[in-house]
Amino acid sequence: MTVTLASRMQHMKASEIRELLKLTERPEVISFAGGLPAPEFFPVEEMKSISLEVLDRAGRKALQYSTTEGHAPLRQKIAERMNRTQGTSVGADNILVITGSQQGADLTGKLFLDEGDVVLCESPTYLGAINALRAYGPRFVEVPTDDDGMLIPDLEKALAAHPNAKLLYVIPDFQNPSGRCWSLERRQGLMELARKHQLPVVEDSPYRDLCFEASSLPSLMSLDRDNLVIHLGTFSKTFCPGLRLGWVTAPKGLYEKYVLLKQGVDLHSSTMSQLLLDRYLERHDIEQNIARITAAYRARRDVMHAAMTREFPAGVRFNRPQGGLFLWVELPEGIDSRDVLAAAIQRDVAFVPGGCFFPNGGHHHTMRVNYSNMPEDRIEEGVRRLGSVIRSFLR
Amino acid sequence: MTVTLASRMQHMKASEIRELLKLTERPEVISFAGGLPAPEFFPVEEMKSISLEVLDRAGRKALQYSTTEGHAPLRQKIAERMNRTQGTSVGADNILVITGSQQGADLTGKLFLDEGDVVLCESPTYLGAINALRAYGPRFVEVPTDDDGMLIPDLEKALAAHPNAKLLYVIPDFQNPSGRCWSLERRQGLMELARKHQLPVVEDSPYRDLCFEASSLPSLMSLDRDNLVIHLGTFSKTFCPGLRLGWVTAPKGLYEKYVLLKQGVDLHSSTMSQLLLDRYLERHDIEQNIARITAAYRARRDVMHAAMTREFPAGVRFNRPQGGLFLWVELPEGIDSRDVLAAAIQRDVAFVPGGCFFPNGGHHHTMRVNYSNMPEDRIEEGVRRLGSVIRSFLR
Repeated sequence: MTVTLASRMQHMKASEIRELLKLTERPEVISFAGGLPAPEFFPVEEMKSISLEVLDRAGRKALQYSTTEGHAPLRQKIAERMNRTQGTSVGADNILVITGSQQGADLTGKLFLDEGDVVLCESPTYLGAINALRAYGPRFVEVPTDDDGMLIPDLEKALAAHPNAKLLYVIPDFQNPSGRCWSLERRQGLMELARKHQLPVVEDSPYRDLCFEASSLPSLMSLDRDNLVIHLGTFSKTFCPGLRLGWVTAPKGLYEKYVLLKQGVDLHSSTMSQLLLDRYLERHDIEQNIARITAAYRARRDVMHAAMTREFPAGVRFNRPQGGLFLWVELPEGIDSRDVLAAAIQRDVAFVPGGCFFPNGGHHHTMRVNYSNMPEDRIEEGVRRLGSVIRSFLR
Repeated sequence: MTVTLASRMQHMKASEIRELLKLTERPEVISFAGGLPAPEFFPVEEMKSISLEVLDRAGRKALQYSTTEGHAPLRQKIAERMNRTQGTSVGADNILVITGSQQGADLTGKLFLDEGDVVLCESPTYLGAINALRAYGPRFVEVPTDDDGMLIPDLEKALAAHPNAKLLYVIPDFQNPSGRCWSLERRQGLMELARKHQLPVVEDSPYRDLCFEASSLPSLMSLDRDNLVIHLGTFSKTFCPGLRLGWVTAPKGLYEKYVLLKQGVDLHSSTMSQLLLDRYLERHDIEQNIARITAAYRARRDVMHAAMTREFPAGVRFNRPQGGLFLWVELPEGIDSRDVLAAAIQRDVAFVPGGCFFPNGGHHHTMRVNYSNMPEDRIEEGVRRLGSVIRSFLR
């Protein structure tokens, strides 16, 4: 067949790393590669009784088409929880239920981006967002970050160099891939610049609730006085990813556009999934579920950090995230983490080479390491093997 | 806020008719407007036992992330059923599970269309596909149709006028909105031209299984010898739309591109929905379910057609579809069905004005009338009211 594809398909390549990681699906592999929640905390028993209740009380409704915006009581609950936990003041009419927050990145690209438009983002940033937005042909301008988030003077320089930038995409809480959490000052600094430039800010927030500290920092949406922030949320990390439910919170004006685009891409998200989640939120305390998950991930983070401290040779840097699923490792420059992965797979341990999180390439000495999906003894063993592999590269 | 949206948003307008139809959601309205299946045939009781089984046996898996391609046993079953009922020879590795076949239209636009590219389609065609594809900025070239499908000499002329056309989008079986079914000759004629021009053909096939006659005509994919046909299927009409499950069948080469794009837009479709459907297909005979639905829709089609014959004044033409959900009405030219709808809503009856199914406008004397979602007595009463409204316009 000699058919002609859209020109955007030139940028859309299957990742070599994804192919490599397919080799890690064997059960004997200790995988720190995925971003999977720990399935032992999925409320399987609760879901059984809830499934029966939903089908008994609203079976025909649960199995029928429904509105693009989403199940109204669920939207109400999402708005109330955001207002309660983040101090925002949004209503159900700002909430669009979507098929995982990944869909929010796609809809955002569709809404804002023409070919060649500039998207400002953290360096590194979330691979899934890069892939979603890349279909719309933008130029990514990476803004340097440190452990406290984006460097505000660098953001200012980037805005001066790209005054027509269309979007600022950030993950302020326990970022994927770096695990970093932005300080209050950086959040305020970003919002000040966004206001000055009237630049829309996409706050992707999948990990915010998985906070190992006593209290969270304000979300960007809660700091917004100009309706510039679009907030993407998800139940994939706090409930069950297999239901594919997330949400967009958008200011009026933009909200209706998201609905219009969502209708074109899949009409609406699963009615059954929405009714199951809505019933779960009525019958059970999701905060308690989140507390259980967070405690387990904190313990795993501790085990992983301690093991790295023991097992990794001098010259390897790694952080100690205050929440989320990921820890970020920097090898000495010159060591390519793709080679390290190839060697690690031979030892039945895996991670994601960090280079793929930099939309403009480079940074191949970095690694993203997940600690949420493996029990503590496997984390210890995996880090031991990884340390030995890394040492072999340092010789 | 004075943010700048993507230029595509200029074409993406909320439909006035959609706003009007919101007025028809009152329970007293007899609505022939939607394309909703009859919920009384949803297998609610079966879904209860299946939900328990899935959660008992594979609860953690059902609630976890899964692969973009879809649940492997489900893909296998879809391929086998296509081969059995359509005589195709596809494998599980041609099947991508998607979030309703609507998503297939979006992914197809993303895969093939650059701004200004020509899409050839039936006149009229499916509104949801127009909306999905429009986001990619194509020019729609409508090819005239009659009761047997697209007029092949007109397709030939269109191809001569637009030799760089990118896609041919058609719904050969019981089309939305017209209810028409293409004859074998037209199907063969289309495939001959597609072959000659090496033009990809999207066969959107949501209604194929709802056939009121003894046997179906060959699908385009079964006639394809050149890997030119992409087939979109769905379980929304034969099982439950609320699970949001459909599929793309694509030839190798294109298949991998669809997977890549699907990963960017929502990672994968609901694992829970997929496992429920897979278990349903194992435990129950979906052919029996389809037979029950089809018998009911055939009876409703009969009732609606008889009522229109009785109630509609001379000069109004309507067809008698051999399958699917919709019947197509042509009022005398000069009568605008949008005005008829406004008057009909006053009498608590609704339909969709046909103009919105023509991507380039016009044809406002046409109407799409759904018969699947109302019981027979309401169909009779609704057509009676509609006849009286139409008569008032003919005076």
